[in-house]
Amino acid sequence: MSGRVYIVGMGPGADAMRTPQADQALAAATDLVGYSTYVARVAERAGQRRHISDNREELARARHALELAAGGAAVAVCSSGDAGVFAMAAAVFEAVEHGDPAWRTLEIEVVAGVSAMFAVAARLGAPLGGDFCGISLSDNLKPWPLVLRRLRMAAEAGFVMALYNPLSRARPWQLGAAFEVLREVLPPTTPIAFAAAVGRADESVRVVDLSAADPAWADMRTLVLVGTATTRRIERAGEPWLYTPRSVAPEL
Amino acid sequence: MSGRVYIVGMGPGADAMRTPQADQALAAATDLVGYSTYVARVAERAGQRRHISDNREELARARHALELAAGGAAVAVCSSGDAGVFAMAAAVFEAVEHGDPAWRTLEIEVVAGVSAMFAVAARLGAPLGGDFCGISLSDNLKPWPLVLRRLRMAAEAGFVMALYNPLSRARPWQLGAAFEVLREVLPPTTPIAFAAAVGRADESVRVVDLSAADPAWADMRTLVLVGTATTRRIERAGEPWLYTPRSVAPEL
Repeated sequence: MSGRVYIVGMGPGADAMRTPQADQALAAATDLVGYSTYVARVAERAGQRRHISDNREELARARHALELAAGGAAVAVCSSGDAGVFAMAAAVFEAVEHGDPAWRTLEIEVVAGVSAMFAVAARLGAPLGGDFCGISLSDNLKPWPLVLRRLRMAAEAGFVMALYNPLSRARPWQLGAAFEVLREVLPPTTPIAFAAAVGRADESVRVVDLSAADPAWADMRTLVLVGTATTRRIERAGEPWLYTPRSVAPEL
Repeated sequence: MSGRVYIVGMGPGADAMRTPQADQALAAATDLVGYSTYVARVAERAGQRRHISDNREELARARHALELAAGGAAVAVCSSGDAGVFAMAAAVFEAVEHGDPAWRTLEIEVVAGVSAMFAVAARLGAPLGGDFCGISLSDNLKPWPLVLRRLRMAAEAGFVMALYNPLSRARPWQLGAAFEVLREVLPPTTPIAFAAAVGRADESVRVVDLSAADPAWADMRTLVLVGTATTRRIERAGEPWLYTPRSVAPEL
């Protein structure tokens, strides 16, 4: 088969955070496939077709991209952030594994990008200074008790945490339940950041203590960053900087 | 103070994976500070000064950058990957917290980038399809028992793992000890990837089962990616693709 699929991580939103490799893949594509918000970030190009789908239809969108490529198209699947982090890459390979065996002969190229947690961390200082993890709070594809177990273990092990998909209209209570578990393990002064649209005009960033963190400050676009017991605030005239020291003392 | 520090994540190596934001910061700098390998990746620019230091002197390098900025310079601290992930950002803020109070009036901007684990994951398929973590195996700054505890908890919790700094001449045994712990928790068929210099001419990538993983295949430039019990290989005519399904069944 002559078709090709690029799964493109377009970064967290600002054009300056999108790699040249992502631009090249988007320019080489005959067809763009993706959620409307992400496809809308790509400049219109004569002759390039656009296939818009709903954000929740990931597997159907992946199959559609593979069918187009099997017909000879060069398809760019438009993902936010990094294509492999809670985005489209895993859905495409899942569709390949369970789909038409001929899809295994397609060229499939994943284009890495800057995932939201790194843009947020850079905006705040260096909160990811130690070991870290990324956890999706969505229980659409995994059982909620497993999410809670991972949160508790990550807090106990001292990982800085980035919480993706903290809540949505259909899942309004998950973030509050997550904070309850974190409060059982982490000190009340642990810094929590709520951030959305970092680097864009509608950016919003708020840093508070875990004891004061309110799930109502988040929506489906928010990334919630959870510090550790050692994460520090550096006070100064402007907004404080946040960082996690690289060193961990022997007793921790 | 009029000085400024950019802490720049230059991506995993290939120019096409460096963001325009990083290029802009490097172009705006009067002074570059960094480990020789990273500074060498920046094209020479007339009048721009270069301050090369040894890779292990992170805190001294951070202080040097802050002193230059306090003298009015625009300093770019050159980091590989993402500046906040096992790189220079945390060292700079640590130096600020414990250094000259006047440093808190400097402009400090962290520029996010594509960290090695995402370039490696993209090269392999979508191994980070679920929750994931990044762990440095270096015990220079944290106690080794804590590293082992984090590895065990991450494996038990089902996180995909990226292991940074797997070993060096001064720390030759850590990766072997890590594999021993992982073998106590994860199935012998769990995929392990060894990858270095992804996207560059000297790229090397090797994927094996955990039971066969040999620490001798790694050096200080290698990133080791550890799958989960559910990570899948998609067999095909070429190199197999690796991906971790987004779904986790209730019993896991």
